[in-house]
Amino acid sequence: MRLTRYFLPILRENPAEAQITSHRLMLRAGMIRQAQAGIYSWLPLGFKVLSRLEQIVHEEQQRAGHIPLLMPTLQSADLWRESGRYDDYGAEMLRIKDRHQRDMLYGPTNEELITDIFRSSVGSYKDLPLTLYHIQWKFRDEVRPRFGVMRGREFLMKDGYNFDLTVEDAIHAYNRHMVTYIRTYERMGLKAIPMKADTGPIGGDHSHEFLVLAPTGESGVFYDRAITDLTLGDRDIDFTDRGAVSEIVETWTTPYARTDERHDADEFAKIPEDRRIEGRGIEVGQIFFFGTKYSEPMKAVVVNEAGERVPVQMGSHGIGVSRLVGAIIEASHDDKGIIWPEGVTPFGAGIVNLRQGDAATDAACESLYADLTKAGVDPLYDDRDERAGAKFATMDLIGLPWRVTVGPRGLAAGKVELTSRRTGESEELSPEAAVARLREIYANR
Amino acid sequence: MRLTRYFLPILRENPAEAQITSHRLMLRAGMIRQAQAGIYSWLPLGFKVLSRLEQIVHEEQQRAGHIPLLMPTLQSADLWRESGRYDDYGAEMLRIKDRHQRDMLYGPTNEELITDIFRSSVGSYKDLPLTLYHIQWKFRDEVRPRFGVMRGREFLMKDGYNFDLTVEDAIHAYNRHMVTYIRTYERMGLKAIPMKADTGPIGGDHSHEFLVLAPTGESGVFYDRAITDLTLGDRDIDFTDRGAVSEIVETWTTPYARTDERHDADEFAKIPEDRRIEGRGIEVGQIFFFGTKYSEPMKAVVVNEAGERVPVQMGSHGIGVSRLVGAIIEASHDDKGIIWPEGVTPFGAGIVNLRQGDAATDAACESLYADLTKAGVDPLYDDRDERAGAKFATMDLIGLPWRVTVGPRGLAAGKVELTSRRTGESEELSPEAAVARLREIYANR
Repeated sequence: MRLTRYFLPILRENPAEAQITSHRLMLRAGMIRQAQAGIYSWLPLGFKVLSRLEQIVHEEQQRAGHIPLLMPTLQSADLWRESGRYDDYGAEMLRIKDRHQRDMLYGPTNEELITDIFRSSVGSYKDLPLTLYHIQWKFRDEVRPRFGVMRGREFLMKDGYNFDLTVEDAIHAYNRHMVTYIRTYERMGLKAIPMKADTGPIGGDHSHEFLVLAPTGESGVFYDRAITDLTLGDRDIDFTDRGAVSEIVETWTTPYARTDERHDADEFAKIPEDRRIEGRGIEVGQIFFFGTKYSEPMKAVVVNEAGERVPVQMGSHGIGVSRLVGAIIEASHDDKGIIWPEGVTPFGAGIVNLRQGDAATDAACESLYADLTKAGVDPLYDDRDERAGAKFATMDLIGLPWRVTVGPRGLAAGKVELTSRRTGESEELSPEAAVARLREIYANR
Repeated sequence: MRLTRYFLPILRENPAEAQITSHRLMLRAGMIRQAQAGIYSWLPLGFKVLSRLEQIVHEEQQRAGHIPLLMPTLQSADLWRESGRYDDYGAEMLRIKDRHQRDMLYGPTNEELITDIFRSSVGSYKDLPLTLYHIQWKFRDEVRPRFGVMRGREFLMKDGYNFDLTVEDAIHAYNRHMVTYIRTYERMGLKAIPMKADTGPIGGDHSHEFLVLAPTGESGVFYDRAITDLTLGDRDIDFTDRGAVSEIVETWTTPYARTDERHDADEFAKIPEDRRIEGRGIEVGQIFFFGTKYSEPMKAVVVNEAGERVPVQMGSHGIGVSRLVGAIIEASHDDKGIIWPEGVTPFGAGIVNLRQGDAATDAACESLYADLTKAGVDPLYDDRDERAGAKFATMDLIGLPWRVTVGPRGLAAGKVELTSRRTGESEELSPEAAVARLREIYANR
């Protein structure tokens, strides 16, 4: 993309309404614009990151055999009356009447609707196990929406639901979700730690929430540093192998890691002192096993091998996709702006032309732009007629992980400069070598 | 995907509520399920087609330099009061009050919101031309929703908005949209004809709607057959070249083609008789040029080269993405089921195992499944323990364009059978040759 043809409305001033870093940086970098309290338009740069996160979530869910569908944003109140949650849910549920005065609502979650889909079409244990998920906009009518996309009213969420015959099967589904989530966050460049959690309004028997470590996080967290050394990487996982999946869960849940709500000072004290970390975290996902909480009242039953009708064992599993955009920024920025991890960056690299209008520099930039595009790096070329300082400041603010700087002096020696946004380190190399390096960096993105 | 691990809730009976073919077939093929009147869940097969259509729309818009963003589903009533449309819009607009009794609405279209985004960040003619678009769920509270996704209440639409300095620039944007739409529909396997249209509640100076030819279409259409011979194909188009773009528009709008509302019998009679066609069509998109209708009341102005503040020239351009799923089926089916064009099919080919459980047949199917997956064909393998007749009926109903049938008799001769869903013609060939053929068919998908 050429910047002169893009729509990147950068703000020079710090917006007064933004209380936290990610909100401020997303507004300044032209990623979002508030439409009304807690409701945002995702401008091109923000939408690109959001789409990238969606793609990672889809890939990791499907790798585990989970099946995507799409439920509507508006739901019928009747289903929620059936589960008993319509009256329980309180003022956070946006209640709507259509032109015929029928009660509807903007879905804050989808246990009822997915259970209805399930019960209408599945009747036998032979159709299990089954995990369905979608990524769809939700609404929670917060009293005081704030912190930008971190606590918006209209927000994008992945929610998945498993349907199983036995508790053991459902626990395997729970474990499968934990493993897919670990990898999902890892690919987004995050250190996200699963921690035991309360079940809240979803209900159920057990639950883990995932907390991204960030100094500005909303929750206090206490953990054994050993857990942040774990990585799943690109290893091959057979998601039908219960032992293999539960071993990963075991590994990730054994080191001490708790939010302040569930912190146990005595347990924490048993960890060697140099591994005891007190930090802060942002909740970016949660998984639940709740057995027959919805399947019983809503009569989602299957016939088992013995011919008996039994309610299915269920769980639900959510990732806050729009919230993650904010969380990634909270975890990865400096005083100049955002620092995107390579897995989620909106553009792979920025090209800065130091002398726009100079024939040789323009030609070198054009050729670099074409080569990087062809190499799958998806570059953003700053072809504005601006001074170098302004171009560098823009690149630093929007946080592309790599910058290629092209100027007459370097070109005379056949060189361009490749700079890492994270370390600030630069290297002079030929344009071809820069392309080759970036191609390799993004090869497995 | 293996069918035993998929969620494809096929209906044996014709659903009583479905009055038209696409609605009936989408329900029967397990593509959608009604959540409430005019609101559908997109089950996995339906969601896959819908996503594919979204992808084609994105690709063709971006090819023309149009920039994607994402506006929220809920909008503030204030913006609509500013344009004067809040009171005009009538009962089709779903009006909502939040917990603080603020007036909101579920967006039926986005002229106001995009104009607000534009005016808040663009101030100079130097930032033009600019075309922004999104693909987002909309709501129109139809009195009597019916015909499935063809006239739903919650529906997915692509809507794009151009901002230009002069009328000539805006006409070029209009033309650019017409050309992108022609190719979009073509890639979806449709014959869609642009026809002069009234502007309705969007307003404006001129407009074309696109009608897909289908015998069950809602509108009568009269056209010169010459227009259905035109194809854009994969030709390279320079969207900045006004002449080239307007020449394509000229070619596509010169032959007579009108809906019954605007039909002119005398003009029609001038076409040679063998080219005069009376048919039916389904509206699947519309483009508008409306000048300063929104920019003037909403004060979306830029400073021109002479330093004067002038309101921008605008247009809006929509494609009914969810409606298209129905339209494609109306245009392409037979009495056994859907016939997907290759450009939009949910799976590239079906594999039918004629003797599930037989070691050699199973092994051949598994190897075919792996090879087709690797070749990018994205096969659906019917690995259920069912008789051949049931498997064929399922494949015919869900309409994959190609079926590979694997049975012991064929395998003994080293052959499988490749069958076209459209023609019904079959050919015996080696599994390798079948893979090679399908790889080639989908190479440029």
